[in-house]
Amino acid sequence: MGKFDHKDLLGIGQLSVEDISLILDTAESLKEISTRDIKKVPALRGKSVVNFFYEPSTRTRISFEMAAKRLSADTVSISASGSSLVKGETLKDTARNLQAMNPDIIVLRHSSSGAPHLLAMEVSAGVINAGDGINEHPTQALLDMFTIRERKGRLHDLDVAIIGDISHSRVARSNILGLTKMGARVTVSGPPTMMPVEIEALGATLVSDPVKALKDKDVIMMLRIQLERQNKTLFPTLREYSSFFGLTMRLVREARGDVIIMHPGPLNRGVEITSEVADSPYSVILDQVTNGVAVRMALLYLLIGGSKGDNAD
Amino acid sequence: MGKFDHKDLLGIGQLSVEDISLILDTAESLKEISTRDIKKVPALRGKSVVNFFYEPSTRTRISFEMAAKRLSADTVSISASGSSLVKGETLKDTARNLQAMNPDIIVLRHSSSGAPHLLAMEVSAGVINAGDGINEHPTQALLDMFTIRERKGRLHDLDVAIIGDISHSRVARSNILGLTKMGARVTVSGPPTMMPVEIEALGATLVSDPVKALKDKDVIMMLRIQLERQNKTLFPTLREYSSFFGLTMRLVREARGDVIIMHPGPLNRGVEITSEVADSPYSVILDQVTNGVAVRMALLYLLIGGSKGDNAD
Amino acid sequence: MGKFDHKDLLGIGQLSVEDISLILDTAESLKEISTRDIKKVPALRGKSVVNFFYEPSTRTRISFEMAAKRLSADTVSISASGSSLVKGETLKDTARNLQAMNPDIIVLRHSSSGAPHLLAMEVSAGVINAGDGINEHPTQALLDMFTIRERKGRLHDLDVAIIGDISHSRVARSNILGLTKMGARVTVSGPPTMMPVEIEALGATLVSDPVKALKDKDVIMMLRIQLERQNKTLFPTLREYSSFFGLTMRLVREARGDVIIMHPGPLNRGVEITSEVADSPYSVILDQVTNGVAVRMALLYLLIGGSKGDNAD
Repeated sequence: MGKFDHKDLLGIGQLSVEDISLILDTAESLKEISTRDIKKVPALRGKSVVNFFYEPSTRTRISFEMAAKRLSADTVSISASGSSLVKGETLKDTARNLQAMNPDIIVLRHSSSGAPHLLAMEVSAGVINAGDGINEHPTQALLDMFTIRERKGRLHDLDVAIIGDISHSRVARSNILGLTKMGARVTVSGPPTMMPVEIEALGATLVSDPVKALKDKDVIMMLRIQLERQNKTLFPTLREYSSFFGLTMRLVREARGDVIIMHPGPLNRGVEITSEVADSPYSVILDQVTNGVAVRMALLYLLIGGSKGDNAD
Repeated sequence: MGKFDHKDLLGIGQLSVEDISLILDTAESLKEISTRDIKKVPALRGKSVVNFFYEPSTRTRISFEMAAKRLSADTVSISASGSSLVKGETLKDTARNLQAMNPDIIVLRHSSSGAPHLLAMEVSAGVINAGDGINEHPTQALLDMFTIRERKGRLHDLDVAIIGDISHSRVARSNILGLTKMGARVTVSGPPTMMPVEIEALGATLVSDPVKALKDKDVIMMLRIQLERQNKTLFPTLREYSSFFGLTMRLVREARGDVIIMHPGPLNRGVEITSEVADSPYSVILDQVTNGVAVRMALLYLLIGGSKGDNAD
Repeated sequence: MGKFDHKDLLGIGQLSVEDISLILDTAESLKEISTRDIKKVPALRGKSVVNFFYEPSTRTRISFEMAAKRLSADTVSISASGSSLVKGETLKDTARNLQAMNPDIIVLRHSSSGAPHLLAMEVSAGVINAGDGINEHPTQALLDMFTIRERKGRLHDLDVAIIGDISHSRVARSNILGLTKMGARVTVSGPPTMMPVEIEALGATLVSDPVKALKDKDVIMMLRIQLERQNKTLFPTLREYSSFFGLTMRLVREARGDVIIMHPGPLNRGVEITSEVADSPYSVILDQVTNGVAVRMALLYLLIGGSKGDNAD
């Protein structure tokens, strides 16, 4: 088994096929810890993980916190609201200050694309990008790939459709980078105003008509309509968006019979996905959440320097 | 000693006399841990407790957090403010997402009556109701009963008066249910606008005049005037409320000579209780806080599946 | 080696020369824990530390939290925002309630001078003042003295200049008290509107002209311009403040050749200090942050009752 030779996890772009396989394999071996009676191993005892969330994201923060605690690491959380660390201070100075307290890992969620890269240059601690602006959300893509591999047995030679606001989605971006790297074929679909011009350069195929985009797919990945982030002119009404691009059982039937349906959460039921689909046997949405903890355990473990042989309790 | 045969603690209504006795006995045996030099036993090592507070309540959250940590459980806290878990997501979806991360216990404080019951139906983790709307606050009632039993040696055959805004008080409701079940007699008093119509159905006796209500009581339980929650028309002025229903030493003398005085906190000194009373030897208000940690330790312990024999360090 | 014979750390004013030396020596021996592979010793296992921050201060809270965790203590954090513990309750009642839960240490940051002293009178737990109003910030002064001693080998017979808004700075006040007690000479400088009238009574020398104030100094300590706290009439413009009292390399050259430059952070780059100075080899600003964790570990350790001999892992 290979070694993970990175200080930071900033994006899927930086990872090789071997890196991704190593992360997924490590996550696979760590996943059962969360189902044990005593959900804790001493692997990262005495290590400090700082969860630094400029943007609120309870879901992702809790996943990282649980992952760290199940490996016995200590966690400290910083949220932007009321953070005087942030006031009147550049990110660079904040980074240096955090580093001065000797953390092992800093998990950063930030509204500006590239913020984790800046942080990583300033600190010797490992940096994990927990979502930066509209750039990348690599841990989401890794947990998505983990979930697909778990269900399909492989990533290569699969047909994946990603539907929604591709141009503003760091989830889409990280998944396109990762899935194509691993040998899957990615088709994207959504309103023309939500498609980046350079989408084909990323390696994905654009099919405007969602009925055609879903044809014979192994995996459907729905994106969340960011109601709060959306420029209202991107589509006329939610109802109209929903009637064209919302995932219904009728659309699901265009895909393969054993298709799996994914969503990064939280769900806007009745907007990008109907409840019938979200709660159907095709849905692996809650597996994604479970696997998120395992993948984050793997990343903390690999970045802090474990090698795959010695993670047993 | 019996076994605690519940997945959740949603309300006092669900508990039998044996259940309540088991909880109080377990709390009694765990209480001394908090007075040790090393205030920690490994009973719940590797267990995850999520403290989910939609309504802020620092006091109750800290009590649960300390209880969990003294049993070596890991804790994760979610507050409503800034919780994206909550945004655009039903409680049902939030519940399923939390469950997907394999917590052992979810402690829920929520402004809607019945929210913990909904959560409990969706998750296999144990759910503890830390106060839901105007419905129940079972851990408060249990710590109150613990405190009474500790001081009086029993619960049955005691005369208890509860004074204040009975109709909006989940504390009153849980205590009436618990105390009557355990064989105490409960008298309630307060302004007519604060009395629920169905009070006698709960098993309590309504006595409008507080002087008469306190006559020969063993226990006086004062309720907090929820200044922020109160519909201002329920009584003309605070001063008037206070002059009729505020607990003074003159009123205390109506009760038995060995009466104990309780309050769930935080105190509005000079409103529902004078400082002279709150700080008198009759007051067991701070014992209630101390016992709250012990009772919550007992509940975490029993719900996660311990049996009373094996909790020793 | 002596013993630390205090229940609380409320201010530098209460400490003897021997106390300060003991704290700094203990910090020195604990500092290397943060550089270990496993940054944790069991010294305070089973102890509870409550971090109670009425005023937000992410930097100081994290430093205390890391310090506590590296000694294996359990931590619970309370922030003022949304703290119902605070609502309608006196600090005295809050104190008694916290005490009822048996914490070992309460760390208090409060906007009112004297709040930690009031807390300390009410609780048997140790109280650490993490900054109270414009009174004291003793842990900052201790980490500053630690840093100076680490660099200069001593505190006595050093010349220290403190520049900025002396009259509103608890950092300045604690440092003047500590440094003069330890045998250093302190010169202060800043706009006349920012100088307390009784400055000489504290033992410092006032030199209005910053050029003269910095002459032959061993240590320059710059204070943060509290942009949010400042009454705007204290100086005409930031630009003007900066041009007179902002630390530039030109001003640094007035001091000794081996001068060290300190700042409690966060930096207002280009206001009280230029980037050239802050990032120069003279700057020990990040050492201060690192040493803050060590000094707070020492205080937690000494207040909870350790003696210097038995802190080894």
